[in-house]
Amino acid sequence: MNKALSLLAIILFAGAVHAADSERTFITPPGADPKVAPPYSSGVLVKGTFYVSGTLGVDPATGKVPADAEAEVHLVMDSVKQTLERAGLTMADLVSVTIYCTDLDLYDKFNAIYRSYFQDHYPSRAFIGVAKLVRGARFEIAGVAVKPSKSR
Amino acid sequence: MNKALSLLAIILFAGAVHAADSERTFITPPGADPKVAPPYSSGVLVKGTFYVSGTLGVDPATGKVPADAEAEVHLVMDSVKQTLERAGLTMADLVSVTIYCTDLDLYDKFNAIYRSYFQDHYPSRAFIGVAKLVRGARFEIAGVAVKPSKSR
Amino acid sequence: MNKALSLLAIILFAGAVHAADSERTFITPPGADPKVAPPYSSGVLVKGTFYVSGTLGVDPATGKVPADAEAEVHLVMDSVKQTLERAGLTMADLVSVTIYCTDLDLYDKFNAIYRSYFQDHYPSRAFIGVAKLVRGARFEIAGVAVKPSKSR
Repeated sequence: MNKALSLLAIILFAGAVHAADSERTFITPPGADPKVAPPYSSGVLVKGTFYVSGTLGVDPATGKVPADAEAEVHLVMDSVKQTLERAGLTMADLVSVTIYCTDLDLYDKFNAIYRSYFQDHYPSRAFIGVAKLVRGARFEIAGVAVKPSKSR
Repeated sequence: MNKALSLLAIILFAGAVHAADSERTFITPPGADPKVAPPYSSGVLVKGTFYVSGTLGVDPATGKVPADAEAEVHLVMDSVKQTLERAGLTMADLVSVTIYCTDLDLYDKFNAIYRSYFQDHYPSRAFIGVAKLVRGARFEIAGVAVKPSKSR
Repeated sequence: MNKALSLLAIILFAGAVHAADSERTFITPPGADPKVAPPYSSGVLVKGTFYVSGTLGVDPATGKVPADAEAEVHLVMDSVKQTLERAGLTMADLVSVTIYCTDLDLYDKFNAIYRSYFQDHYPSRAFIGVAKLVRGARFEIAGVAVKPSKSR
């Protein structure tokens, strides 16, 4: 009984994984006040396919994009990874990634860090130079992951 | 016989939903002359996943993007909604949305209207500041929806 | 035996189609040296859905985007087609295409060539005017294709 209550408390605290029905699970932004939550899910898992929102590299301490570009890349990749993990997935499950970037001169620096998040295989990828991103970000990364039918 | 012919007439008139085969349905732009139709479907439904084309907020009366930005947001969201409905889906079936926007200063205004099109859950989302859109649009919205296996 | 060895040689030479497991196949860029290969797959096929990377129109002879815009469109579309074919798919299997373009004045020229790659039906599509693309490209095209359950 206590165990069940504790489990319930953990689920309520995490608060951010909603199984809308048997087919769809919505991952909401961590720490967001549901009353003023932004109008998107961090990711949606439906029938084994997980759609990851465009993700920014925001420093949790300041709530801002860091001055250093490489720090930003680590933050955005870590955030994508965490969103996947909250849905029970890993970076290895990513099959498609779109990188929106405001400064293509950062291409090589980005790639060096990006590589470190993958092992055997890379997802398909588009790398797009855009005009501007929310919160002055240099990078926004969206993706699609597919849950393996059984553990690999 | 008459009934069958009437049904056929309705199908021909709607004209814009083509079941290419048992797995794929193509939704063509409404009102488009097939002889000079643009080279895209408004949406493609395949094995339960519906890919919605990048959609603009064009005023049907003028064929143009309206001067007022908020009117444009309503037009583009209504158009996405209509495309979904033509495939037998609803806004609640959207799992991923990409918003391309030429003016990020419109972010808050956009969100206020965007929220009104959803109820319990929001799709995953990317919001991207782009250089320019076709027809001088401020917004272009693409998405992916998944048909529920059974009615919710 | 010789036949088996020849087949093996062909497979090793092509070298670029990796079945990571029974569910996922990674198509790597043709001709890329695996030691310095770029950090993406040209496409990933997973459970019948094929995610095509953002593709550029690079002249294989020079390794550069051609001066002529229409030549670039042919190169990029041919490259998308080849990636699909390497996964056992065709242009008719594309259900969604995103075109990133640095010069929207090329819209009509692009469409004329784009049409010639399709027959009965067009995929859904987004056409986005972006700030800049890798290698000075004017076009980058990504897409999603779905393998038919049986031959049509």
